Amino acid sequence: MTTREGFCDRKEGFQQGLPCTATITPRNNILAHTSDIFDVIVIGAGYAGLTTCRDLCNSGFKVLLIEARDRIGGRTYTANIDGHLYEMGGTWVHWNQPHVWHTMHRYGLTELLSSAPGDVGCQKFTVSADGKKTELSRHEEELIIQRGFEELFNIDGNSGRTLMPYPHEPHHNPDIKAYEAISAAERLEKIKPLFNDIELATLQACIGAISGNTMENTGFFDLIRWWALGGYSAAGVFELTETYKIAAGQSSFARKIFEEALSTGNFRYTFDTVVSTVEDDRILVKVTTLSDTRWLAKRLVCTIPLNVLSQVQFDPALPPTKLAATQQGHINFGAKVHLEAEGSDLRSWSGAAWPSKRVFACHGDGLTNAGKNTHIVCFGSNKEFPHPSGDSEEFAAEVKQLMPMQINKVIWHNWLKDPFSRGTWCVFPPNYSFQYLEALRERHGNILFASADWALGWRGFIDGAIEEGSRAAKQIIDELGFPKRIAGLL
Amino acid sequence: MTTREGFCDRKEGFQQGLPCTATITPRNNILAHTSDIFDVIVIGAGYAGLTTCRDLCNSGFKVLLIEARDRIGGRTYTANIDGHLYEMGGTWVHWNQPHVWHTMHRYGLTELLSSAPGDVGCQKFTVSADGKKTELSRHEEELIIQRGFEELFNIDGNSGRTLMPYPHEPHHNPDIKAYEAISAAERLEKIKPLFNDIELATLQACIGAISGNTMENTGFFDLIRWWALGGYSAAGVFELTETYKIAAGQSSFARKIFEEALSTGNFRYTFDTVVSTVEDDRILVKVTTLSDTRWLAKRLVCTIPLNVLSQVQFDPALPPTKLAATQQGHINFGAKVHLEAEGSDLRSWSGAAWPSKRVFACHGDGLTNAGKNTHIVCFGSNKEFPHPSGDSEEFAAEVKQLMPMQINKVIWHNWLKDPFSRGTWCVFPPNYSFQYLEALRERHGNILFASADWALGWRGFIDGAIEEGSRAAKQIIDELGFPKRIAGLL
Repeated sequence: MTTREGFCDRKEGFQQGLPCTATITPRNNILAHTSDIFDVIVIGAGYAGLTTCRDLCNSGFKVLLIEARDRIGGRTYTANIDGHLYEMGGTWVHWNQPHVWHTMHRYGLTELLSSAPGDVGCQKFTVSADGKKTELSRHEEELIIQRGFEELFNIDGNSGRTLMPYPHEPHHNPDIKAYEAISAAERLEKIKPLFNDIELATLQACIGAISGNTMENTGFFDLIRWWALGGYSAAGVFELTETYKIAAGQSSFARKIFEEALSTGNFRYTFDTVVSTVEDDRILVKVTTLSDTRWLAKRLVCTIPLNVLSQVQFDPALPPTKLAATQQGHINFGAKVHLEAEGSDLRSWSGAAWPSKRVFACHGDGLTNAGKNTHIVCFGSNKEFPHPSGDSEEFAAEVKQLMPMQINKVIWHNWLKDPFSRGTWCVFPPNYSFQYLEALRERHGNILFASADWALGWRGFIDGAIEEGSRAAKQIIDELGFPKRIAGLL
Repeated sequence: MTTREGFCDRKEGFQQGLPCTATITPRNNILAHTSDIFDVIVIGAGYAGLTTCRDLCNSGFKVLLIEARDRIGGRTYTANIDGHLYEMGGTWVHWNQPHVWHTMHRYGLTELLSSAPGDVGCQKFTVSADGKKTELSRHEEELIIQRGFEELFNIDGNSGRTLMPYPHEPHHNPDIKAYEAISAAERLEKIKPLFNDIELATLQACIGAISGNTMENTGFFDLIRWWALGGYSAAGVFELTETYKIAAGQSSFARKIFEEALSTGNFRYTFDTVVSTVEDDRILVKVTTLSDTRWLAKRLVCTIPLNVLSQVQFDPALPPTKLAATQQGHINFGAKVHLEAEGSDLRSWSGAAWPSKRVFACHGDGLTNAGKNTHIVCFGSNKEFPHPSGDSEEFAAEVKQLMPMQINKVIWHNWLKDPFSRGTWCVFPPNYSFQYLEALRERHGNILFASADWALGWRGFIDGAIEEGSRAAKQIIDELGFPKRIAGLL
């Protein structure tokens, strides 16, 4: 199976579309009598949408899933290139991410691969500060980030614990609002005197990799959230957000949820189908697609990402606050690019650059090609080229400037250009969460909204998507009531 | 509502049976035609059993729940005494306990109460070492336990991370087996020279409170598991295992799961019903109760606790390894006793005693009586008296020896004497996990076994019970297939 998404650039040639088990064929399973009214229509086959479908179908509701892409998984899918699994979007999970771990356990998919460098390979950290390169050890990198994060987040003399005591309820202490209004740049300004240029470049590259944007556009609030979710320690943040991958690949996981929904017999779906309007007449919701197909349902769950939501027409129109939230959107415009580098020595290499045109941070993430070569994962900024190969060439050239290496292939997905995401994982700008989070989570008549982009806990993560998908399904089960069934009568 | 379980001893008199919303009335909802064959019979209404029932009923299976007690929750229930909620068994939860947090979120029950002492009250720590009392501060207590745990668990020069890298897969590194064979006493012997008498008493009291038994009978392996699950830090262990309570009380939570099962119309139950034999003829499982009632089902999920399992007759008999595991059982024979002390100063007091006849460790856990008095929770050993009031008198007297106080009431449940638990949360003796865990988890024909006592992750916790309940339900859904339903046909 191949998705039409993603790019691979290698000596054998440039390729658009990657081998991927998340692609669904045939593209729909809608029967002839589609004039039926569904119980629920779900827009979007990411983890939020899949979870909603699975939960509702299990409880006996008739569900239709509409997805614009040719595959499940949303901003997460796994490409299998020459026998190696590359996670093109969402990647890392952890047993302390409650919703994703519970779901992985449901499908017996708790076997993990570690991205931790271990004590093999070069153990080098290359940092480019204002274009000037320095080589340190991975251990020195760790100490810089540890001290940097501790200073950055010690806003209350208690490592942030007083101002954000409950990471899954980030607004709990209203005093955090003062820090919500500022940018990462403003906070960094305060602690700058404590660090030298190399340390500051390391910190900013690290934050840039988290937020996919400039320090000015990055809300400091979301960084505190990562810190709190990671257990208020730098080691915790790295362990929980970029260390453990599902060994079988994210797409195997997404398929399990999809297939469970399918096994119920209650599940219809249509891929390659773009929604244009959603109308709610207070009794039924009508969805119309770009190709003018219409479906009806009692409830609709919209999982369209924050940065794309304003492109769908709602009738009645979305309330002003929700509309404003979708128009401003989140600020993660980052790039994630995989490289295969010749040799295995770079498996424990990491690089950082700030300021930087394209590459903010990169690190070895295991071996490819039967242990011969190295998988390097990079985070940086996006840029458009007349042909996408320009993108990979510039990215690879910048990584080579950091560390000379022979790059055999470059594999990536431009999530910013992608019309169905317009960004990667959600990171809020300054002054956004207290203003908009509640509005984003609110229903609109018979339309419910579920997305990792407005989850309470691991917002922007697969865990947050499942949190939201569960919430929407349970709300509908509670309000429509459990369907009566012949087999169910005792 | 009142359960017949639990004791309250106060000046108004001694009382057996406590006000509790976990009691189910009427005691059964079985209709006249009970000769029907159920899809699944579940024995036990603790969190494992409730989760299995809920998942199976949601998926359209006809389920019968059989429970010996008059209430749901198993080794967890909430007593409401004079307007204060006392958790009589399982209590603390955390957002890093994936299964329980996911489930709490499902029911909108993520509001928490903190048991952390805060910076109010006396802030004292009283430790009795070999009968000699010393008074320290809470901060000094924290430092002792922090250094003690770090030495105790640094068995690999990497704080235990190398030998137990995956807390939810404790056997992952087979090298841990060497430490699984030893007792807490043997490990303590090795680090003893590093600590003085006060420190050693503090550490042993703390371990005794965790395991409810002597250092000799406590398996060191389970302590490493707690350490790993707590993020390899003493602060983490305390944060994850005794800091956050569900504000609405555990019994509100258990009721939500029970009521969701009930809402499906697929759920029958019978309380006050003790199972005597379980027979599996390879096609159907037959359950016979002490009062000679019989029910049939295609599958049976047995959630009977480890220390009680050997009292039920299985035909065919359980395989030898599983049988031996149930005959040896786990070693947590601890007592949990609540006190209400006059005044509010002790809210941040904690005490520890080792060796000790009854009380190992106790600490303030919030205020009662509109903020006037203090709730103190104690952990220690069990003992039998001609009348249970002897129990509370001895316990209270020992706590008063540690810290003079006026005790207004004593509230407890003797889980060791309880014929349906014979112990509290599961702690393995030395040399048990590698020998028996797998066998305990194995099915026996059409009988599946699900209990926190053999969970892989948070074994002995509510989280582990939900982990196991989910596992059993999913396995049955997968093998019996999703039931066909009229309403389900699209």
